[in-house]
Amino acid sequence: MRTICPQSETLGTVTPFPHLHFPGDKPQPLPAAPTSQDELKRIAAHRAVDLVKPGMVLGLGTGSTAVHALDRIGDLLRCGVLHDIVGIPTSKKTEAHALSVGIPLSDLNRHPSVDLSIDGADEVDPHLNLVKGRGGSLLREKMIEGASKRFVVIVDDSKMVDRLGCSGNSVPVEIIPFCWGYTLGQLKKLFAGECGFDARLRMTGDEKKEPFLTDNSNYIVDLYFENGITRDLNEVSDEILRLTGVVEHGMFLGLASSVIIAGEDGVTVKNKG
Amino acid sequence: MRTICPQSETLGTVTPFPHLHFPGDKPQPLPAAPTSQDELKRIAAHRAVDLVKPGMVLGLGTGSTAVHALDRIGDLLRCGVLHDIVGIPTSKKTEAHALSVGIPLSDLNRHPSVDLSIDGADEVDPHLNLVKGRGGSLLREKMIEGASKRFVVIVDDSKMVDRLGCSGNSVPVEIIPFCWGYTLGQLKKLFAGECGFDARLRMTGDEKKEPFLTDNSNYIVDLYFENGITRDLNEVSDEILRLTGVVEHGMFLGLASSVIIAGEDGVTVKNKG
Repeated sequence: MRTICPQSETLGTVTPFPHLHFPGDKPQPLPAAPTSQDELKRIAAHRAVDLVKPGMVLGLGTGSTAVHALDRIGDLLRCGVLHDIVGIPTSKKTEAHALSVGIPLSDLNRHPSVDLSIDGADEVDPHLNLVKGRGGSLLREKMIEGASKRFVVIVDDSKMVDRLGCSGNSVPVEIIPFCWGYTLGQLKKLFAGECGFDARLRMTGDEKKEPFLTDNSNYIVDLYFENGITRDLNEVSDEILRLTGVVEHGMFLGLASSVIIAGEDGVTVKNKG
Repeated sequence: MRTICPQSETLGTVTPFPHLHFPGDKPQPLPAAPTSQDELKRIAAHRAVDLVKPGMVLGLGTGSTAVHALDRIGDLLRCGVLHDIVGIPTSKKTEAHALSVGIPLSDLNRHPSVDLSIDGADEVDPHLNLVKGRGGSLLREKMIEGASKRFVVIVDDSKMVDRLGCSGNSVPVEIIPFCWGYTLGQLKKLFAGECGFDARLRMTGDEKKEPFLTDNSNYIVDLYFENGITRDLNEVSDEILRLTGVVEHGMFLGLASSVIIAGEDGVTVKNKG
């Protein structure tokens, strides 16, 4: 059976996306105006996959936006546009999905240098700092995306914020389960002066009575900031990491090379300055 | 049956040890000259237990020196000199041993403020910075000892070093098992300029083919420095903690209140300056 190679209809192209190589704050108009957020996510994901070349080692992101990239890579592998790709999944969920769409997988031990990572984000600030890991995969994502020569973030425009933490959603912190209540208390102390700050252990299950477990069998504490993080982000990062019991946090500072933002008005690309 | 309260024969006293309250670099002579290292460890441990008062919340250390403190506390509880003690064990091994000698146990979630922790160390530098965790319990030890109003370190004099890392033994780092080879590589990069530096995953089992697992189900990387750590310790600490995949390291900087050192010439106490 002949596989029909899918066209990137919305964008009208499957060639590499040139705008990534230049500052591109001006939105590129979309041929048709999409309405759903999921459609915007798909558009951003397909743009990023245009950057994938045969032979690349790819970091494969986790979440509802990244899944569109996985599907697209799978399609392009099936029709032969892509080949000799090795994917490094950032979560067990992504591993399962990538295998289901036919992407050959590896890990950082065997491929410590990643050519390109593509992943979504929960928040993106004007300096391309990110909040990630609301899905709980922040540690593996940060490890793989930090090992990447290029890390392209794909978002719909609802994820753009003036300041990290100000969307009302959480900044997640992965912690060791041992004496988690003490670590939670230490995190609360760290931000005791922040107006409207709260920190809560992430729970799961039907009655939200079980602590959420990461792929590393750790817990997540969600930090909530009423007005976002107003202090220097690198200092805040070090203060969190110095707490014994903290494994990693969901602020990705200076890691993103480019952000592809899909909105009602079209696609915008922001490159690291 | 009446329990006979053990006397601290070697020291000739079970009263609180006054020398801890003052700088005491001059060795206090021992009545009899002990020879074995284990005997020295026992002497240091008993001196520290003299500081324990009824009603205290105690951090209980891990290792061959700390075990003497556990035994001594158990003895004093049995004979009624101590009562209403709550111990917070720094490892599963210590938990088992403390229960076996009759010390009631709790954890940091229920008792977030610890009155006194007593533990051994693998190295002590002139500023009372420590290397700990060669036994693999560094994270729990650091969490509990960091939560203590007072942290008393007990060592024989072989543990005193001019510079952390220069004893020839390792500085351990607890890491997440996921892509441990990559994290090991990042640690090697961090110290690439250090003469004679090496980093190795700690193995266990009869043939040393299985990675050693911490109480948190993580791995340990052992860092070896030919001449010790020559750079600023706080900077090195931050650099290690910033590596994704690192959970904690075995340098305890500024945490010790006092160090009790037992040597052939007697017992010396050093207090934090």
